[in-house]
Amino acid sequence: MSLVNNASPPEHVPVSVKADFSIPRPQARRGEVRVALPMRYAGVHDLSLRYEMQGPADAPVVFVAGGISAHRHVSAGTEFTERGWANDLAVSGRTLDPERFRILAFDYIGAEGLLDVPIDTVDQADAVAVLLDALDIPRLRAFVGYSYGAMVGLQFAARHGMRVSRLIAASGVHRPHPYASAWRALQRRAVALGQLQCADAQGLGLARQFAMLSYRTPEEFGERFDSPPEIINGRVRCAAEDYLDVAGSQYVARTPVTAFLRLSESIDLHRVNPDDLRVPTTVIAVESDRLVPLSDSVLLVEKLAGRGGLRVVRSAYGHDAFLKETDRIDSILNSVLRDNDGVFA
Amino acid sequence: MSLVNNASPPEHVPVSVKADFSIPRPQARRGEVRVALPMRYAGVHDLSLRYEMQGPADAPVVFVAGGISAHRHVSAGTEFTERGWANDLAVSGRTLDPERFRILAFDYIGAEGLLDVPIDTVDQADAVAVLLDALDIPRLRAFVGYSYGAMVGLQFAARHGMRVSRLIAASGVHRPHPYASAWRALQRRAVALGQLQCADAQGLGLARQFAMLSYRTPEEFGERFDSPPEIINGRVRCAAEDYLDVAGSQYVARTPVTAFLRLSESIDLHRVNPDDLRVPTTVIAVESDRLVPLSDSVLLVEKLAGRGGLRVVRSAYGHDAFLKETDRIDSILNSVLRDNDGVFA
Repeated sequence: MSLVNNASPPEHVPVSVKADFSIPRPQARRGEVRVALPMRYAGVHDLSLRYEMQGPADAPVVFVAGGISAHRHVSAGTEFTERGWANDLAVSGRTLDPERFRILAFDYIGAEGLLDVPIDTVDQADAVAVLLDALDIPRLRAFVGYSYGAMVGLQFAARHGMRVSRLIAASGVHRPHPYASAWRALQRRAVALGQLQCADAQGLGLARQFAMLSYRTPEEFGERFDSPPEIINGRVRCAAEDYLDVAGSQYVARTPVTAFLRLSESIDLHRVNPDDLRVPTTVIAVESDRLVPLSDSVLLVEKLAGRGGLRVVRSAYGHDAFLKETDRIDSILNSVLRDNDGVFA
Repeated sequence: MSLVNNASPPEHVPVSVKADFSIPRPQARRGEVRVALPMRYAGVHDLSLRYEMQGPADAPVVFVAGGISAHRHVSAGTEFTERGWANDLAVSGRTLDPERFRILAFDYIGAEGLLDVPIDTVDQADAVAVLLDALDIPRLRAFVGYSYGAMVGLQFAARHGMRVSRLIAASGVHRPHPYASAWRALQRRAVALGQLQCADAQGLGLARQFAMLSYRTPEEFGERFDSPPEIINGRVRCAAEDYLDVAGSQYVARTPVTAFLRLSESIDLHRVNPDDLRVPTTVIAVESDRLVPLSDSVLLVEKLAGRGGLRVVRSAYGHDAFLKETDRIDSILNSVLRDNDGVFA
C-alpha cells in the first residue's frame, strides 16, 4: 500500500505546528488522506481516509473505532461541537479525556457508499496503519474498539502488533457468531427485496429495524413497549413499531445502501487467528449481548492464553451497552489504561 | 355462536358407530363442521372447522394444538399415514397414545388463508368449544397446547373452564412478549415489502427465515453453521443461508400469505387474565426460548397462585424444543396426565 498524497489544506491542520504558542493550538482537526489500498478480495483501490483527531499534539494517541455506523467524530469538542457517536465516553473527566490523550478516529472505508466490493476487516486494519503513517504516529497507546471496531482492532493488533501497546475489544471478537451472521444475511435480503422494485429505502429501513432487535434485549423491550397492540385500518400494530419506524428512517437518512451492505458483509468475513495476537488485550463482553455471545468472548480470552483478560458487563442494553453503560465502560477503560503506578502513560 | 350444519358425509365418519364389531372400528376420522362464529374484532363469520380425531371411541379426549403452522393431523395412524406435526409425541408407547386417548386437533381458523380479518385467540378458543359441541364431547381430559396452541389453550381454559380437566401450556403464556411482538411485526413488514410488487412469495419466505431465528438458538446455529462464508458473484453468502432458503421455500409452498399475516397478528393480540384460569395448569418453559422468556412463564405460574406448576426444559432448540425434545416432553406429559394412583384417567 502506498500513500498517494496527504490531506487537502482547507481541512487538514498539520500536527507539526507546535513551537508557535502565540497561535491557539488546535485541539481538534479533521483531514483526508488519499491512499491506494490493496484489498483482500478486491485488488488495489484508491480511497480517501477521512479522520478526526482531538487532543494535545504531544499526547499519546488512542484510536477509537465503533460499530459499522460509527464515524470519525467521536465526541464534541471546541472545534467540532456536534455530539459524537461516543460522546459520553471521550470527554473531559473521562478516561478517554481529550486533554490527556489524542483521540483519533476515521470513517470506515466503504462508509461513503462508493466502494461496492467485498470489504474485509483486514482492509480496515491496513487502512488504519496507512493513516498512522500519514499522520506520523509510530505507535498507538491503545486501540479501543467496540462492535465492528473491536473486530478491526483485533485485526490491527494481529497484523500491525508493533504499532499498538494495548487493545480493548468490546462486544466484538475474533469471528462473527454463525447465528449473528444468519441474522445479518437476512437483513441484507431485506435490502435486496426492497431493491427489486426501487423501494431501497424501505428495504434498508426494515434491515435496520431487524438489526435493532439484535442490538437490544427483550428486557428493555419488555419495559418500554408493554402496552397491548392497536388495530389500525384492520391491521395489528404493536407497541414497539413507532420506535422501530424512527430507528429505521433515521438510519436510512444517513446511510447509503451500499455502505450498509458492504460493511454488514465485512462483519461476516471477519476472522482473526488469536495465535497472531501478541498485544495485551482486554475483552469486554456484555452478558445479554445477542450478537456476540459471552461464550465467544470467553473462548477468545482462553485462546489468548495469558495475553488477554475478560471483563463482563451486565446490562439491559445488550450489544449497545458500550454506548449506554458509559460509567461502567469508563471504569474498565480507566483500570486498563492506567499504568502500574496508577497514572496514565 | 351457532352450529350451522355438520360435517359433509364423504370425509366425516360418525363416532357413534360402536355396536357393530363386524366392521373394523375406525381409529381415526376427519370431518368438517360449519359454524357461524361471532369473532372478537370482526363480527360473525361463517367458517369451516376441519378436525381430525384419532383413538378409541370410548377413550377420554385430549385436544392437541400447535404453532400457527400446525394443523389437524397430529400424528400418523392406520387411516392417515403421513407424518403429523407432532408425530413423535402422539404415537403408541407415548403418553399421548392414540390407543389410550382420543387425540383431537383442528386447523386453526384463518389457516386456509381466506379469513382476512383480525383473529384473536378468543376466536380460536370459542371455535374449539363449538367443535366439541358438534362432536358431543362435554369435557376434555386435557388440552395440550404448544406455542400458539398454548395461548389458545389458556384462552379456552379461561372462557370454557368447565370443559377441560387439565391444561398443559408449553412455550406459550398469557401474553406475547413485547420483544417477540416486535420481531413478528417486522416479519409482517417483510411480507408487506414483498407485496409491493407481487413478490409475495419472496416476502413470506424472508418473514419465515426471520421467524426461524426466533424459533431456534445461537447454540444450535453455532454447531451447525460454523464454516466461513463464501463470496459468490461478489456477494457474501453465510453458512446458514442454504438452510434458511429451504426453510423459507418449504413454508411458502404450504402457507397462504393471508394465513401467515392473520395468525401472526393473532399471537400479538393474545391476552388472558390469569385470574380467570381455574383449570389446573402445567406451564412448560424452555430456558433458551427466544420468543417466550422463562421470566414470563414464571410470572404466569406466580399469578396462577397454586393452580399452576412450572416445568423447565433445557434444550439447544429454544422455542422449537417441544417438537425436538420429545422424550423430555413426553415424560412431563406422563407425570401430569397420570392420576394419583399412577394410572391414566
